[in-house]
Amino acid sequence: MEMAATLDLHELCANLTKVALKAGGLIRNARTTGLDNRQTSAITCKKNTADIVTETHQASEELIRWYLLEWYPSIKFIGEESFKAGLDRITNAPTFVVDPIDGTSNFVHGLPEVCVSIGLVVSRKPTVGVVHNPFTGELWTAIKGNGAYYSRTHARVQDGKDNTDICHEAQAVKLPRFPAPFSADGLRGACIGIEFGSDRQGPNFDMNLKVFTTLARTQHTGGLFVNSLRCVGSAALAICRVASGQQEAFWECGCWAWDVAAAWCILEEAGGIMVDGHPGGWQPPVDNRRYLAVRPALGEVSGRRTGQKQQEDFVNEFWSTLGELRSTYGPL
Amino acid sequence: MEMAATLDLHELCANLTKVALKAGGLIRNARTTGLDNRQTSAITCKKNTADIVTETHQASEELIRWYLLEWYPSIKFIGEESFKAGLDRITNAPTFVVDPIDGTSNFVHGLPEVCVSIGLVVSRKPTVGVVHNPFTGELWTAIKGNGAYYSRTHARVQDGKDNTDICHEAQAVKLPRFPAPFSADGLRGACIGIEFGSDRQGPNFDMNLKVFTTLARTQHTGGLFVNSLRCVGSAALAICRVASGQQEAFWECGCWAWDVAAAWCILEEAGGIMVDGHPGGWQPPVDNRRYLAVRPALGEVSGRRTGQKQQEDFVNEFWSTLGELRSTYGPL
Repeated sequence: MEMAATLDLHELCANLTKVALKAGGLIRNARTTGLDNRQTSAITCKKNTADIVTETHQASEELIRWYLLEWYPSIKFIGEESFKAGLDRITNAPTFVVDPIDGTSNFVHGLPEVCVSIGLVVSRKPTVGVVHNPFTGELWTAIKGNGAYYSRTHARVQDGKDNTDICHEAQAVKLPRFPAPFSADGLRGACIGIEFGSDRQGPNFDMNLKVFTTLARTQHTGGLFVNSLRCVGSAALAICRVASGQQEAFWECGCWAWDVAAAWCILEEAGGIMVDGHPGGWQPPVDNRRYLAVRPALGEVSGRRTGQKQQEDFVNEFWSTLGELRSTYGPL
Repeated sequence: MEMAATLDLHELCANLTKVALKAGGLIRNARTTGLDNRQTSAITCKKNTADIVTETHQASEELIRWYLLEWYPSIKFIGEESFKAGLDRITNAPTFVVDPIDGTSNFVHGLPEVCVSIGLVVSRKPTVGVVHNPFTGELWTAIKGNGAYYSRTHARVQDGKDNTDICHEAQAVKLPRFPAPFSADGLRGACIGIEFGSDRQGPNFDMNLKVFTTLARTQHTGGLFVNSLRCVGSAALAICRVASGQQEAFWECGCWAWDVAAAWCILEEAGGIMVDGHPGGWQPPVDNRRYLAVRPALGEVSGRRTGQKQQEDFVNEFWSTLGELRSTYGPL
């Protein structure tokens, strides 16, 4: 990519971080000033009650789009809010892929598992990723080939305005934060992120139930008996936790490129892998809509399995839970 | 209770908070110094991989027990770690009911949804409750008849020691933080906390699957189509979120008095209610092992339904999801 060659990705990552923090301030203020107070604001339904869009969602996307078009007018912009099905495909051209609020249901309810997700995709590969949770202050960033980092930001109210200061860079932690080998027991010791999502009938729902049940069930009743299943309501945050080594995996079929693009870069730079949510796809495209994120793996002390082999074994065992079932979601 | 009459509950709550923060510091340090690092520490299995106990769990309970016996030698102490099935029943006597780390699986994995839960139960009623998450700094407290409060604490490292300063009391927020009427749609708009738990076969697991599926499924395929299902892995934190108004409800059968005692007081003082996880029980005992926590409700503007009526309608609709299924858990 001609343009990618001339882009300073470190500067771009710093700029995406600035914008993510600004959008985060908007989101935090909206929650505390009542813009999104459930008693007063009009919450519109895009699809159903499980798929809620608020004014803040639109305002956050407008803010991010405004800055990115100002600074990078020749880079395409695809945002959840402005996305038009079928028109806004991700091409080989450098493209910002943005979710202005991931975890919208949490945001509406006041739960803190909410983030801004801004990715740069070049040649359809996640190349820069910034994910920021404005309620906990957490910030994950990555640049392809340069590692992934975690830090905390602190909100500071000054002259009545909510500013966000980033922690000194020296305090940023290189991912993974919790490096470990995979258990020899495979999925048995694993903590796995799943989502019930908003698709609650038909083949996709049936497949989800089958997978969740098989993951949970004891081994002598036909399951894999994973350690724990977690539903946090934000794919981007869940994948960042996988990248951090805080959970073994995250699996979802039905989410979109903007839910995963930024976190995917963070995951890969931390040493994790992103594969297809369906069996067999080791190199899924960014708009695959079916994703399985697997955490970084230390090689075992005994040296029996490399980190990559541990991840592959994990993926194959996970894929086995689908049996013959498949979702209707696929690459755009 | 003679003793309860002479207890200064405000002082006691302040003391429980001090101990919870001390235990929180121990937990935070254990995670960062590697006491619980998965590569080095011996993680023992109490029951199975979904039920992991660490050294830190024992150390936290020892710390809490030591202070509480020192300050309140005549109040009974029941902790998860030291509990002997069948011997340590909760009687009418004032009793501290303590979970030194709720969210043990999260703690082992490095996920931040972890808390210290310290309750005082008098005449088998939750009377004082303190719940503290040492990773986010969040603190919930309540005294029966005196409301429930939320604040954030800040960890400060001083002379190499990790101290925790409590925010100035003026910054504590009275619960609920997000007051709202219930949706006229009943459970359809609700965010509900559930847990897969560690019981993964037989009637309890079947009941869980049935309830989860019915909650999630669309209405014209026989479900209630709730807005969202969340699994955070800590009953105490989930109930505190219900008390805050951040989710409509939390349901679990199989957890213990120490998982719920402190948060139950916080929930009731915020205006929420705790009922049986099985149909029909409006006044469950503290050691019921089946719980449904429902958030505070504002009366509707139209005045059609009081807050209490909204909660009762919600509970009845929730109970309907069990059908004829029942768990094997019940009062001790």
